[in-house]
Amino acid sequence: MVVATNGFPSSNATIPPTNISPNAILPLDRGDPVVFEEYWKKMCESCTVVIKGWELMSYLSDMSNVCWYMLPEMKEAIKRLHHVVGNAVTEDRYIVVGNGATQLLQGAVFALSPSEANSQPINVVAAVPYYSEYQDEVDILRSGLYQWAGDAASYEKNEPYIEVVTSPNNPDGTMRGPVVKSEAEGKLIHDLAYYWPHYTPITHQADHDIMIFTFSKCTGHAGSRLGWAIVKDIEVAKKMTRYVQMSSIGVSKESQTRVAKIMGVICDGYQNFGSMKSELFFEYSKRILKQRWEKLWEVIEESKVFSVAKYPKAYCNFTNESSESFPGFIWLKCKEGIEDCGSYLLEKLKIRAREGERFGVSPKYARISMIGTDDEFNEFLKRVSNAKKECD
Amino acid sequence: MVVATNGFPSSNATIPPTNISPNAILPLDRGDPVVFEEYWKKMCESCTVVIKGWELMSYLSDMSNVCWYMLPEMKEAIKRLHHVVGNAVTEDRYIVVGNGATQLLQGAVFALSPSEANSQPINVVAAVPYYSEYQDEVDILRSGLYQWAGDAASYEKNEPYIEVVTSPNNPDGTMRGPVVKSEAEGKLIHDLAYYWPHYTPITHQADHDIMIFTFSKCTGHAGSRLGWAIVKDIEVAKKMTRYVQMSSIGVSKESQTRVAKIMGVICDGYQNFGSMKSELFFEYSKRILKQRWEKLWEVIEESKVFSVAKYPKAYCNFTNESSESFPGFIWLKCKEGIEDCGSYLLEKLKIRAREGERFGVSPKYARISMIGTDDEFNEFLKRVSNAKKECD
Repeated sequence: MVVATNGFPSSNATIPPTNISPNAILPLDRGDPVVFEEYWKKMCESCTVVIKGWELMSYLSDMSNVCWYMLPEMKEAIKRLHHVVGNAVTEDRYIVVGNGATQLLQGAVFALSPSEANSQPINVVAAVPYYSEYQDEVDILRSGLYQWAGDAASYEKNEPYIEVVTSPNNPDGTMRGPVVKSEAEGKLIHDLAYYWPHYTPITHQADHDIMIFTFSKCTGHAGSRLGWAIVKDIEVAKKMTRYVQMSSIGVSKESQTRVAKIMGVICDGYQNFGSMKSELFFEYSKRILKQRWEKLWEVIEESKVFSVAKYPKAYCNFTNESSESFPGFIWLKCKEGIEDCGSYLLEKLKIRAREGERFGVSPKYARISMIGTDDEFNEFLKRVSNAKKECD
Repeated sequence: MVVATNGFPSSNATIPPTNISPNAILPLDRGDPVVFEEYWKKMCESCTVVIKGWELMSYLSDMSNVCWYMLPEMKEAIKRLHHVVGNAVTEDRYIVVGNGATQLLQGAVFALSPSEANSQPINVVAAVPYYSEYQDEVDILRSGLYQWAGDAASYEKNEPYIEVVTSPNNPDGTMRGPVVKSEAEGKLIHDLAYYWPHYTPITHQADHDIMIFTFSKCTGHAGSRLGWAIVKDIEVAKKMTRYVQMSSIGVSKESQTRVAKIMGVICDGYQNFGSMKSELFFEYSKRILKQRWEKLWEVIEESKVFSVAKYPKAYCNFTNESSESFPGFIWLKCKEGIEDCGSYLLEKLKIRAREGERFGVSPKYARISMIGTDDEFNEFLKRVSNAKKECD
């Protein structure tokens, strides 16, 4: 038996010791992507931005662009990154920048809703398990334009709808397409926040009507609150821009400047491969996530308490190799005898997870962040490997 | 007669020449506050921020604060600035940061709306002329929680209401208090975006339930999209924070860092007065606005076409002198014979203004930005001084 520096006995010799007290609650309910911080530390000064007091003062950026508050270098950086990664078509598309994917999802729902004075609110659906925040984002203001209507797979109304397709899915990491079977008129929003090569093989260039991405989950810069949408229809792009205007009159130019800079550094690495001394971003981030998932599988396969579904392999056009997915979250299922996974985790293991009900499914499931600090992850492994099924 | 470099004859020798073509449309409908850019150029490096690639990555800032995404230095800088200026009470108040005053106004309306399932939408009112965007901000999503109900002065319903008090007022620069006379239960939101010493004398420390400020109009850094609310009631502060969370999961940390830095430089100037070589910010900005207003009065007093109301003098506790107001906008009224001020400006003078109807009043009025570039302002003066009343 290995004894960690904090005196907590570890049943698994491969799990490093942590500085987290065994009595501390592990906050793994959020998806704060700090796992990639180490990479950016290694990059030293190359990603540093310097902003002078008199720069970036105007509301306006490029009045010839539909998204008038978007800096031209922001647009170019987004297009270049998708070109390098090959995960989405950007040619002849409109780009709309927002304060994170959250604001853009709401902007897209607004843009696709009927605007006639006497129209009924359009139904917004997503297949279970769906991202826990969609329902609140859609319902928080009791809009007369749109309303949450739950699970897309069981949508049977003969009324127009908007289906949000999250792929890879949050919480369960699966690749997805639309599932509504209604004959009614449907519109799609693709939330591709996790369609990056560290999380999942890039099997194709996505080319949907509205595709939403966020820098938070791409590089881990969640504090920048920067997302973007790639949009086919100019009228939709205009309405989304109008939404962001009415909601916040645009997006921080400091964030746009910094995100454009960091995207440029990533792309420089790939486009001038020979001269880069350090590991490239998606190689690093995939390696770290793969290591975490491999350690997780060791623990889960021995667990009498928890199970996690396996991911199929697929060929990744970006890394030129066949690979499994390494999602940003663990979608944990409790084995027979434990009905409430979230309560079990909190009460028995002092792990705060996001409960299955929040994702529209049974409390036997819970979501655990895979993108927190090393200490949090190792402490999680230790506690899970020590867990004994209470009905044993 | 003075002939400007662009060949346009100026009827007023005191108006400097501009580089704007006499045929170009002057876009003075927006309030883009670029007038202060020169000041920040003179400050050279003191306001520069340097952000490394690995900094500010997390969503979270201070989980012990109600506004958990607010950087501690942001909060301290806001409190320090209000302490230096003396325009608002911050002791024992909650501060909520948002993506500009726009997002916070909506967050405040959300926070004050009834949340019971069967409640009627609460009426949101403001006295005419009110800020042109309030109505759209309130009505854009057809919320079931709140609805726009127009002019506060004519509100007579016996139903609960929210009154937005804008002081100094946008568009007309007047100091205001609440005006609703209904016996029904009313709640107040104070929009104090322009309650800074360059625009108006600081006659008192404002101390209202919800006070909204924005950095855009304080220093001219509109591109940062940063506003804040000072809130008395913790439950209101929590709901406003919740709104910002659901709308955008917080506020750009790059913007927070930069705004905190610039606020600090302003305050350093005042708190270490003897050692500052350059003019202090509010002295500079007031001087520039005062110069513009004095030039404007010269032109307006000779105008057969336009009039502008005069502002009373008041003693400013910050500058320790009695002063008029120098608002960020001109609230222009066309004299008899011209019914549509906006159309007259656009068609006769190629000046794009925001029309009176947008502010809930007669088309005889229009709003003109006073905070654009020097060239725009001087070109505006030139065209107005050359304007002949068409019914002459």
